[in-house]
Amino acid sequence: MADTAEFIKDLCTPAFVVDLDVAKRNAAVMLDRFQKLGVQLRPHMKTHKTLECADIMTGGSRRCIAVSTLAEASFYADHGYDDVLYAYPLPHDKVQRCAELCERMALFHVLLDNGPALQELKRRPLKQGKLWRVWMKLDCDNGRAGVLHSEPAALQLAREISETTGVELYGIYAHCGNTYGCKGREQIEAIAQETTTNLLQFMERLKAIGIQGLKSSIGSTPSCSHPVPDMAMLSEVHPGNYVFYDVQQSLIGSCRLEDIAVRVLTRVIGHYPHRNQLLVDSGWAALSQDGGGCLPTGYAVIQGHPELKLTSMTQEHGRVEPVSGPLDFGQFPLGSMFSLIPYHTCATAMMYPVYSVHSQGKIVSTWKPVRGW
Amino acid sequence: MADTAEFIKDLCTPAFVVDLDVAKRNAAVMLDRFQKLGVQLRPHMKTHKTLECADIMTGGSRRCIAVSTLAEASFYADHGYDDVLYAYPLPHDKVQRCAELCERMALFHVLLDNGPALQELKRRPLKQGKLWRVWMKLDCDNGRAGVLHSEPAALQLAREISETTGVELYGIYAHCGNTYGCKGREQIEAIAQETTTNLLQFMERLKAIGIQGLKSSIGSTPSCSHPVPDMAMLSEVHPGNYVFYDVQQSLIGSCRLEDIAVRVLTRVIGHYPHRNQLLVDSGWAALSQDGGGCLPTGYAVIQGHPELKLTSMTQEHGRVEPVSGPLDFGQFPLGSMFSLIPYHTCATAMMYPVYSVHSQGKIVSTWKPVRGW
Repeated sequence: MADTAEFIKDLCTPAFVVDLDVAKRNAAVMLDRFQKLGVQLRPHMKTHKTLECADIMTGGSRRCIAVSTLAEASFYADHGYDDVLYAYPLPHDKVQRCAELCERMALFHVLLDNGPALQELKRRPLKQGKLWRVWMKLDCDNGRAGVLHSEPAALQLAREISETTGVELYGIYAHCGNTYGCKGREQIEAIAQETTTNLLQFMERLKAIGIQGLKSSIGSTPSCSHPVPDMAMLSEVHPGNYVFYDVQQSLIGSCRLEDIAVRVLTRVIGHYPHRNQLLVDSGWAALSQDGGGCLPTGYAVIQGHPELKLTSMTQEHGRVEPVSGPLDFGQFPLGSMFSLIPYHTCATAMMYPVYSVHSQGKIVSTWKPVRGW
Repeated sequence: MADTAEFIKDLCTPAFVVDLDVAKRNAAVMLDRFQKLGVQLRPHMKTHKTLECADIMTGGSRRCIAVSTLAEASFYADHGYDDVLYAYPLPHDKVQRCAELCERMALFHVLLDNGPALQELKRRPLKQGKLWRVWMKLDCDNGRAGVLHSEPAALQLAREISETTGVELYGIYAHCGNTYGCKGREQIEAIAQETTTNLLQFMERLKAIGIQGLKSSIGSTPSCSHPVPDMAMLSEVHPGNYVFYDVQQSLIGSCRLEDIAVRVLTRVIGHYPHRNQLLVDSGWAALSQDGGGCLPTGYAVIQGHPELKLTSMTQEHGRVEPVSGPLDFGQFPLGSMFSLIPYHTCATAMMYPVYSVHSQGKIVSTWKPVRGW
């Protein structure tokens, strides 16, 4: 556990630390789970955005990943990655950069959900006779990006893509982010089933109009942590958060607390008995404001201290109070450390220019994420 | 205005853009205001963390700043800055790094609010006979760090610091962050007055026990935007946000909307008429979650479009809806841009590895902030 290991004494806080063994286990479980189902895992990089963690999630293949930004795509391409899906509704200002990535990688995929984006691709034919490899984003009732699966417009757009010169309709992609509203495995499985059914039925409707041989992919860490049997009929899945997990995922039911691979280490910097409160050196600059303090323990879980609550934060200060009763200040001397389990790792990781990676009680590596777009 | 300028068409979005002329005006107004009051302005760097903006805020002197992290302190020292106050309750793990900064700069100041931190300084005497230059943090009813002004412990700690070998008690520092709860100038002035009075009375009590010649400083952008006459009796003030301002500051009453120097530029990436919603390419990775969507227009103000609301965000997606009625999609074609005025600039700026700086409708510079601790 991070809070008992030797190494933490020397770390400058706040620090974002990754338990390498837990992250490796999470990655291996997911790889194994979908290998057994015969479904290609295309891990999403958006949570960590590092080379080292990508290597873990791809089992060292450096092939078949999804990214949320072109900064990630370029970073991974620079490090020999290929078969990269820019899993984001194609922004018109990024067509040229996407084209360059298509031209330098064997397989770079884009995603779109509307006709004007398709026209943008058409206006920039790829060199060397390459085709734009396009996934159509389908909204299977998640309510974010994607053409709605039940609308005739979805079939029309798929046909339009497949008939466009210079473009190959490669797959249909759905994100089941609505699993984030679930509590427990049963609810997750219901959404996973619904998304899968909607997507597979859409694939059937495509076949009926002569569009076949396409890939299909759904994703989200909750659904991929508890896949339903029908997901074996998909070509791919694309979860991302699972390599680290977080408190939110444990509440949804995706994982146990012991599966969470990351912590924010923080030190006590002030005692304020007159208001029954202590300060720690992690504010929202170290944790993000994700969750809005909704946990019974506030903005995070304080490992080993369910009696404490991170009640509020400013940029560099966190206020810790007992959930009830008086605070025993003697137990938490100035300079002593807490290990915070983040509510939402994607948001917390984003606050750090470097992650400290530990294994067997020792720091073994530092990982530097790529930032920007 | 950012949304009518030519340059924005070429910017990759999301982009954090700074109107150089507005930032310079904000900085000049603050410099001038406190020069007239005869009070030293020690601008805080925590909002922007860049060299260029520090030069603007210090009027090019590269002297007399406050920072929130040692990463900032080292960065500014590397660029020839001096007279730097690490305005943060001294964390025990950072004493050695602070000592090194003291030894390499002419004037590096630390801040503390408790005896154990003082003991840590004592254990690390500075080389070349230098003294630790210490500000004592006083809590003038802000309720964050600081020894409470009304407690006898405050005088005791001041005495203890002033009697410690190797240490010089240099000043008393109070942050009036409680101005952030204000609405309007009158309420801001009331808190500014209260903080100033509490601090000045404390200085008198110090004099009465023979401790004199100390500096005094209060700060916060609201109070320094509307200083009360008694603030002329202080030695220093230390606001930071004012160089950029933000929607929150305009609601508090610190500034007008036209004083806000920064925007997040974002593009429309999806139209979803069936749910009366469009998507833009800025989620919380581009804006932060600060404010929690509390504005009538949600997570930001959409410049020129009071009829629109940024209702929710995920990592890279923002959902925009009309405040009421149907959305006129024709007015906001795919690829078109919005200029978002951030709710809290300190939090939004933190999400960017680079700021695009414009003047007279042209990009004139890019600024790179320092990250980490």
